[in-house]
Amino acid sequence: MEYGKTLRPGLVQIRVLDLEKTLDFYTNILGLDIVGQTSDGRVMLKAYDEFDHHSVTLRKADEAGLDYVAFKVDSRDTLELMARQTLGFGYRVHEIPANTEQPGFGKRYSFKISTGHVFQIYSDVELAEKGPQIINPDIWSEQPRGMKAQRMDHLLLYGPNIAEAETFCKWVLGMFVPEVCNNPDGSRLASWITSANKPHDIAFVEFPEPGKIHHVGFYLNDWHDIGNAADLIAINRLELDIGPTRHAITRGQSIYFWEPSGNRVEVYAGGYTAYPDNPQRVWDASEIGRGLFYYSAELIPSFFENVT
Amino acid sequence: MEYGKTLRPGLVQIRVLDLEKTLDFYTNILGLDIVGQTSDGRVMLKAYDEFDHHSVTLRKADEAGLDYVAFKVDSRDTLELMARQTLGFGYRVHEIPANTEQPGFGKRYSFKISTGHVFQIYSDVELAEKGPQIINPDIWSEQPRGMKAQRMDHLLLYGPNIAEAETFCKWVLGMFVPEVCNNPDGSRLASWITSANKPHDIAFVEFPEPGKIHHVGFYLNDWHDIGNAADLIAINRLELDIGPTRHAITRGQSIYFWEPSGNRVEVYAGGYTAYPDNPQRVWDASEIGRGLFYYSAELIPSFFENVT
Amino acid sequence: MEYGKTLRPGLVQIRVLDLEKTLDFYTNILGLDIVGQTSDGRVMLKAYDEFDHHSVTLRKADEAGLDYVAFKVDSRDTLELMARQTLGFGYRVHEIPANTEQPGFGKRYSFKISTGHVFQIYSDVELAEKGPQIINPDIWSEQPRGMKAQRMDHLLLYGPNIAEAETFCKWVLGMFVPEVCNNPDGSRLASWITSANKPHDIAFVEFPEPGKIHHVGFYLNDWHDIGNAADLIAINRLELDIGPTRHAITRGQSIYFWEPSGNRVEVYAGGYTAYPDNPQRVWDASEIGRGLFYYSAELIPSFFENVT
Amino acid sequence: MEYGKTLRPGLVQIRVLDLEKTLDFYTNILGLDIVGQTSDGRVMLKAYDEFDHHSVTLRKADEAGLDYVAFKVDSRDTLELMARQTLGFGYRVHEIPANTEQPGFGKRYSFKISTGHVFQIYSDVELAEKGPQIINPDIWSEQPRGMKAQRMDHLLLYGPNIAEAETFCKWVLGMFVPEVCNNPDGSRLASWITSANKPHDIAFVEFPEPGKIHHVGFYLNDWHDIGNAADLIAINRLELDIGPTRHAITRGQSIYFWEPSGNRVEVYAGGYTAYPDNPQRVWDASEIGRGLFYYSAELIPSFFENVT
Repeated sequence: MEYGKTLRPGLVQIRVLDLEKTLDFYTNILGLDIVGQTSDGRVMLKAYDEFDHHSVTLRKADEAGLDYVAFKVDSRDTLELMARQTLGFGYRVHEIPANTEQPGFGKRYSFKISTGHVFQIYSDVELAEKGPQIINPDIWSEQPRGMKAQRMDHLLLYGPNIAEAETFCKWVLGMFVPEVCNNPDGSRLASWITSANKPHDIAFVEFPEPGKIHHVGFYLNDWHDIGNAADLIAINRLELDIGPTRHAITRGQSIYFWEPSGNRVEVYAGGYTAYPDNPQRVWDASEIGRGLFYYSAELIPSFFENVT
Repeated sequence: MEYGKTLRPGLVQIRVLDLEKTLDFYTNILGLDIVGQTSDGRVMLKAYDEFDHHSVTLRKADEAGLDYVAFKVDSRDTLELMARQTLGFGYRVHEIPANTEQPGFGKRYSFKISTGHVFQIYSDVELAEKGPQIINPDIWSEQPRGMKAQRMDHLLLYGPNIAEAETFCKWVLGMFVPEVCNNPDGSRLASWITSANKPHDIAFVEFPEPGKIHHVGFYLNDWHDIGNAADLIAINRLELDIGPTRHAITRGQSIYFWEPSGNRVEVYAGGYTAYPDNPQRVWDASEIGRGLFYYSAELIPSFFENVT
Repeated sequence: MEYGKTLRPGLVQIRVLDLEKTLDFYTNILGLDIVGQTSDGRVMLKAYDEFDHHSVTLRKADEAGLDYVAFKVDSRDTLELMARQTLGFGYRVHEIPANTEQPGFGKRYSFKISTGHVFQIYSDVELAEKGPQIINPDIWSEQPRGMKAQRMDHLLLYGPNIAEAETFCKWVLGMFVPEVCNNPDGSRLASWITSANKPHDIAFVEFPEPGKIHHVGFYLNDWHDIGNAADLIAINRLELDIGPTRHAITRGQSIYFWEPSGNRVEVYAGGYTAYPDNPQRVWDASEIGRGLFYYSAELIPSFFENVT
Repeated sequence: MEYGKTLRPGLVQIRVLDLEKTLDFYTNILGLDIVGQTSDGRVMLKAYDEFDHHSVTLRKADEAGLDYVAFKVDSRDTLELMARQTLGFGYRVHEIPANTEQPGFGKRYSFKISTGHVFQIYSDVELAEKGPQIINPDIWSEQPRGMKAQRMDHLLLYGPNIAEAETFCKWVLGMFVPEVCNNPDGSRLASWITSANKPHDIAFVEFPEPGKIHHVGFYLNDWHDIGNAADLIAINRLELDIGPTRHAITRGQSIYFWEPSGNRVEVYAGGYTAYPDNPQRVWDASEIGRGLFYYSAELIPSFFENVT
């Protein structure tokens, strides 16, 4: 099997408690644009620098959390092949016809992985009306707002048997694993996994409860914009989890905080350029405090708590 | 009395436990240059962007802390006038002849203020050999090292009766007070005081024990260099106190951490441009957590502890 | 005479050709706020981080350029003293009663200096309704717009006999001169002059025609915001003069460009902290290309042209 | 054929006139590390954040310029397949045995493409002794020097028939083309080509003379480090070509300047995240001035001159 077939995580559906207040956060503070609303009242959003129809769907629910993440793959052939390989891997695969539930999206395949998370794959999606320019393009059409999120970037998921999830991402999704953290007995504590040059598209932490999410990460331009995001957290009286700080793992500069519905959000910048031929970085569990929070060099208690 | 007579805090003498290891921090990590050593073994240092002979003296001692801070004033006349006014204010004034204890420095007057700290004033000091260029000057002569501290910037002192100390700084030193924090009964909890456009040259927090210091602050160029300083704290395994963060008070971007002898150091950037005609900013004690640590919006316990 | 009496340049009145289009630049691109309109149709503006009533007045006229600059001084006593000293210096002084022509401003004195520019001084001005917060203040009330100009910062004026203008600024306005450029015969080619810690509040270049202005400079936070300003110049199809670049003189990071009426504007960040006791920096005229445009190290032709 | 097989440009051999002086630039100013010297006196260098043995070889010669660029591919199978496909494409392919001329490198295949440039491909290279850490890694082992180049990033090549070169990069090297510039007659004027998420690994400009190079680009962290690089250009009296500026094409922030042997170097930061499924950006030749130099929006004459 080969790396490079999966392009990126292209869509997350997030559960929110107070749709109006939370939407205000995603649009006016984080800086996403509203693409539209589905017939059942969910709201579709995208970052200003994304080409595809939408990347975030908010669904009003009684509990915060992640419904699913969908990965875009590079062709219909790849999509069909991966669906078969997923079946072969032992997961039940459910087909979602085009334009069902997620306007603009082609056919998706949906399945639950070992960690209890619902993954989806798709190859086709309409371009957004308000994507980046392509003819003699300016760097943006409208000055980015608020935290100036450029794209939905990655997710950190918590659940059991992440070793299997990692294997699935490599064998079926064709991703590679730039960085891992191992327990003293050699088992995986955490894994950072990517499709191409970003240091991670998805990460897993071993956790007894299935299907939990630590955060969705949105990409900002640089450390300066991390500072700007921190200012906005303060001014808008959002609750900080940790940061501004840096991860030694991925090298990304980061803030974790809570949006109004209680989903943890990361704004993230920097990070190394990952290549599949580079040696894998390996962390000992005893060093993960430093690995995650390089400046304080301690694991904050909330890192293994408050996952939704 | 008039503002503008005091130029800036020009010299601090700091007690260190392990001179060699601590000196390695001040030179190779913080980025100061060694100016020389006194006959009794103290080490004189300066930042690359300071003109005067030296700004920091390290003295080996059994306890960390501050021996004294000396303020440069704008003329010999001012120096003599201030010495008389200090006497008139009720403090005992001690004259230190030129080139005594601090090579390169002219006559100093020394006195203890209400908070138990030793203040000094002087008007004359030799220029450093290795100061900024003045003829067709480049922006620096040698690429700044480590955290790239530009200057010794300010101090935060803890002690009793800061209201009197604030009055002394205004009436005798001719400084003004851009920002204060008051207790519910209207008494001062903290005060930020400056000679000119920097938001503070010195600050006080009311504290039962006299003569304590919270930190000496060194000025960095901007938020980017704050991030670089945080990287150096991590890589050199220095102990972080808090940050990178921002103060709403002064608006400065900041990290507090501990140098090897246990003195808390701040690296600081930004901050508003202060003017004596601008309204004074006033904080309620109940809001000081947000005022000091704008992002977490909570007072960390160490803020009233671990003062040396 | 003493430095420190003048606080800063607090008001400029600028002539614009197309008021509507130019106002769009000053508000939506540069980021100033409209304070109001005078009865004769001029528009008053201020930057988000200025406390006083307004700092920029735009007047529709047939030619771009500067009507006058007004300096705020620290007290009514100083104002009266300076008016008398200005007379004594040999300039005719004209009194402008409070609230005449510039709403919110107290009494001003107006006079023409050797370079042909109209200077004014005043000590009283009302606070703006929309100034920075002062009770438990956030760092701003409304996220800064566009280029995020923090304040009207300085001016560069062209005219004859700048040596006399420099002397006037020192002797009467109590300013000092951190940096100069001299011709081979020792005469002044240019002079940078300040009231306190900013490297310049005003600068002069010797020029045969009187009363010309090279640019008004607005202060941005840092080099990052200089880059953001350059992006906005590009996207809004404004005409660039030079930059992003750095001045070795003042060390400021800078862009010069043209607003829609043909006034050159500078956005400026950084710059050293000036002190009156520091040695004066001195440039040879032969090095002024490098001094002004440190990166290309050449004087661009427009530097001595296109002054309005 | 499939994208993703080529990893990146991994090695350039550059001709220099004055080896000692030029080496001082590459090590002390640009910030590369010396890996060693070949038996015939060439010097091998690498950036601090590169894992492989070396990425730049300097060869003393009578003329500046590029000897060749070598691309790393993802496996030996790919290497052999690409060699056959290159032959099939019509180019003569020359095998260079392992450890010949470039210590540490496995077998390379060498061939000349339509533009007159020598390309090489290889799949194996030893890891550098001084690469990034991999066990509980710090973000770097030694504080980056000078301009802090992180990696050799890309090249801009000039020569005839770039349309064929672009096709070769797509069909044989498996790259894709995020951005192009077309002449009014629809023919290619320029092409930006990449292996994965970087906006370009290599670019071509149509030019009558074969085998010319415009620049080698080195990656810096962000716009702040572009400013730092500009400071170092000024202080070290290097000759600037253009910048600091931004390309609308790739969105990268950039400076072009000349190293002591007359090779143009770019320091580059930012740039969008490229994906093969995103629409191709297309520029009209009439807009290329703005596309290349977004801030001045004019093509500088040297862009089509001084290629070596």
